[in-house]
Amino acid sequence: MAYKRSERMQQRLAGNRERILQAARELVAAGGYRNAPVTAVAAAAGVSTGLIYRHFPSKAGLFVEVLDAAIAHELELLQAIADGGQPSAQRLQAAVTSFVRRALAGPGLAHAFIAEPVDPEVEAARILGRRRFTDVFARIISDGVQRGELPAQDPHVTAACLVGAFTEALVGPTAPSRDHAGDGEQLSAAIVGFCLRAAGA
Amino acid sequence: MAYKRSERMQQRLAGNRERILQAARELVAAGGYRNAPVTAVAAAAGVSTGLIYRHFPSKAGLFVEVLDAAIAHELELLQAIADGGQPSAQRLQAAVTSFVRRALAGPGLAHAFIAEPVDPEVEAARILGRRRFTDVFARIISDGVQRGELPAQDPHVTAACLVGAFTEALVGPTAPSRDHAGDGEQLSAAIVGFCLRAAGA
Repeated sequence: MAYKRSERMQQRLAGNRERILQAARELVAAGGYRNAPVTAVAAAAGVSTGLIYRHFPSKAGLFVEVLDAAIAHELELLQAIADGGQPSAQRLQAAVTSFVRRALAGPGLAHAFIAEPVDPEVEAARILGRRRFTDVFARIISDGVQRGELPAQDPHVTAACLVGAFTEALVGPTAPSRDHAGDGEQLSAAIVGFCLRAAGA
Repeated sequence: MAYKRSERMQQRLAGNRERILQAARELVAAGGYRNAPVTAVAAAAGVSTGLIYRHFPSKAGLFVEVLDAAIAHELELLQAIADGGQPSAQRLQAAVTSFVRRALAGPGLAHAFIAEPVDPEVEAARILGRRRFTDVFARIISDGVQRGELPAQDPHVTAACLVGAFTEALVGPTAPSRDHAGDGEQLSAAIVGFCLRAAGA
């Protein structure tokens, strides 16, 4: 009996944790990091703010977990593409398209995850994720150069430029995406085209 | 006599203003916006903090002026290149090279002007400058497409991608410039090469 109760308790705790993370993610998607105070997360998750602080050390800590989950998901997709057997140009196209499509489908989350001013702790997690994305792109480029599918270039510089390019065009301060509202396909094609040309693909 | 004294007074005031701006710029170059409090600027300029606040409304206001002067200088150079009679690929190369070389020559200023977390007022001035740089690049690209020197592309998307690309590679969180220390020429060539390929030049 004691064992069973503890199991049920653990399930309820895990359920609360999941609900809090989900509520935080939805609030950020709707209005950004700035508009998702712990009180609002608690209300949306149907728990007390006290319970949130029992699961997470701070608002920043909660959001680092939301961000890390998104980064892990994105990385998994990018890595599967990078590990595929296609020619490097095709993998590069698939990787950029994958990132760009998801960002255009969830512009609120993309802005919060990439561009919105956030607490230093969240910013640090963001930078780590950005470096890991860049590494995947560098791997595809390096592979392509080695196989002679892409012209000679510094894969790390190209990868940093690529990540800088598509994030700026998607959510940066000069992003033309606002003027392209409702025309995601065209913007997506323009960004992907830029990246392929840039890598010499 | 009254006229002369007033003229001398005005010169001294203007001299103070210049000295304050110069001191602020040098402190930012050495240690970033964060490490340039008004007290340090006052000490470096040899004036009281009170005098600084007589010339500038706030630390942010002072730095907006430092930043705006740098943006105006950079824009003047970029616009002169854009207005030149060379083929668009050559102008694009000159414009990117101009920006990249100056950033690599003054990495502290480049980081503070582009990437360092700053007060919202400074950030707003920065975004405005970034948009104006992007406009110059869009003009070169648009010109090149119209003349048939560059392949068909959306000049605004390309320009945003270009600015995102070279700023990321220079001072962004994934910037490889740290590993390329002392090898500015190679990094510069890699970034310029990326940008030229990306525009189809």
